[in-house]
Amino acid sequence: MNHIMNIAYFNGKFLPKDEIKISPDDRGFLFADGIYEVLRWYEGFFYDMNSHLYRLKRSLRELRINWTEADILPIMANELIKQNNLENQPAMLYLQATRGIAKRTHNFPSPEVTPTIYAYVWGFTPDHISREAGIKVMLKDDIRWSRCDIKSVALLANTISFQEACENGLKECIFVRNGLITEGSHSNIFIIIDGTLYTHPESNFILSGITRKNVLRIAQEAGIKIREEALQENRLRFVQEAFITNTSAEIIPVIEIGGNTVGKGLPGPITKIIAEKFNAEIVVLKG
Amino acid sequence: MNHIMNIAYFNGKFLPKDEIKISPDDRGFLFADGIYEVLRWYEGFFYDMNSHLYRLKRSLRELRINWTEADILPIMANELIKQNNLENQPAMLYLQATRGIAKRTHNFPSPEVTPTIYAYVWGFTPDHISREAGIKVMLKDDIRWSRCDIKSVALLANTISFQEACENGLKECIFVRNGLITEGSHSNIFIIIDGTLYTHPESNFILSGITRKNVLRIAQEAGIKIREEALQENRLRFVQEAFITNTSAEIIPVIEIGGNTVGKGLPGPITKIIAEKFNAEIVVLKG
Repeated sequence: MNHIMNIAYFNGKFLPKDEIKISPDDRGFLFADGIYEVLRWYEGFFYDMNSHLYRLKRSLRELRINWTEADILPIMANELIKQNNLENQPAMLYLQATRGIAKRTHNFPSPEVTPTIYAYVWGFTPDHISREAGIKVMLKDDIRWSRCDIKSVALLANTISFQEACENGLKECIFVRNGLITEGSHSNIFIIIDGTLYTHPESNFILSGITRKNVLRIAQEAGIKIREEALQENRLRFVQEAFITNTSAEIIPVIEIGGNTVGKGLPGPITKIIAEKFNAEIVVLKG
Repeated sequence: MNHIMNIAYFNGKFLPKDEIKISPDDRGFLFADGIYEVLRWYEGFFYDMNSHLYRLKRSLRELRINWTEADILPIMANELIKQNNLENQPAMLYLQATRGIAKRTHNFPSPEVTPTIYAYVWGFTPDHISREAGIKVMLKDDIRWSRCDIKSVALLANTISFQEACENGLKECIFVRNGLITEGSHSNIFIIIDGTLYTHPESNFILSGITRKNVLRIAQEAGIKIREEALQENRLRFVQEAFITNTSAEIIPVIEIGGNTVGKGLPGPITKIIAEKFNAEIVVLKG
């Protein structure tokens, strides 16, 4: 048998992922009425579990999805790693919570229904090539809704935008809204001009990334000047360095944006300092 | 047995709706990567099936979901009505097509996977009270994405906006984008000022409703002056009549918008003329 059984979590139970089936009346399927989290397992611990749990609860609260047991996430996540024998390798966890199953109406079911909770883990191979060589990214008008701060599964705009980047041989799509750079289709973006690290401030136009937050902390501790400020697209010609962040990729240097070379077309020194400090923290956490 | 078995359509087969299960890897569930249609059955025929089929194909094309058998819709739809013994009563059909089942990545699966096709029908009771008395609607900032012309299942913005309307005792949420009235959370809106019928033109900011299109034709045939033009929110104080349209509700008079009474607070004469002509066409079609 070359098929290893994947054990997933579904509505309170651990069971083979193949046995999990979603109702066609699930509001996650019909209305994208749900939220998600993606966590990274580093051979021994989930990265910044507290922040993920905090953000998960915020998403649930914003959409009023009443998953009263969200606090089980750390225990459930560890149990999934254990049951799938992933303790000693890099892995990822995906968690989705939808409003639940109900007759199709745009308004929320009344009385409230039980939310659908689904999570699974998988072994993961980090993309070392992108991390070393850097990536080229596309610029594109931000066609998403204006509640990007909610980590919802209404990701159609993200998928079609990222697909366009892939078809152009690019590794991420960076969005521009009203002339301002917001973030990537599934990453935050940082830009360095005159030694200052810029990134879009927390607002309804970006998702507050866990890695973003930790990178800001690390940069501050390293004495790097930070401005959480939305950059005009036309300031990109002054960019010396850039990088994107997300939970799975961590920190990836950007060497070309929208066809324009960033700095010398190589990962820059400030990016490297931040990435090294980020990696050093992981090493310490691994113990 | 008080449970009547509902026969639905799923990936080429007619089977009990209760037996249909969606994979948690379906991109409709994970990414809202899918489209839908809602059709109305009038004791003998589906209303403007050709336009629904045309719009369905456009949605599929825009998202590059390759459902090669979309042309079966009319036959499949009639078969569902027959198998559920709904021939002689008002009924609705819901159809959803997603990109299909694949390992979770933002970009499209490569090679392409088979799309998921799901449809079901149900007996329907028209809301005569709203049609006679008119409804009150909310005004709200349009937080949706900027591809509202695609009838996608990425409906989270629509659901939370409509929910807010419901909680305020209102029957629809009308969106305002950059000061301009676009459409409702699941309807188009028409507004009459100085005897001229206004509605937002086809664009990426509205869904091109089938009833909208037929109302425009009927109004034109009736010699009513039409302007497909986005109205500034501040022109609402001049409104004499208003109504919303969609496939299930047909034409519903609006008697209050955003707390302001429309005209005399009763369904207006031009609205009534259009609704009567719409109904007369249905009677003719019923034969």
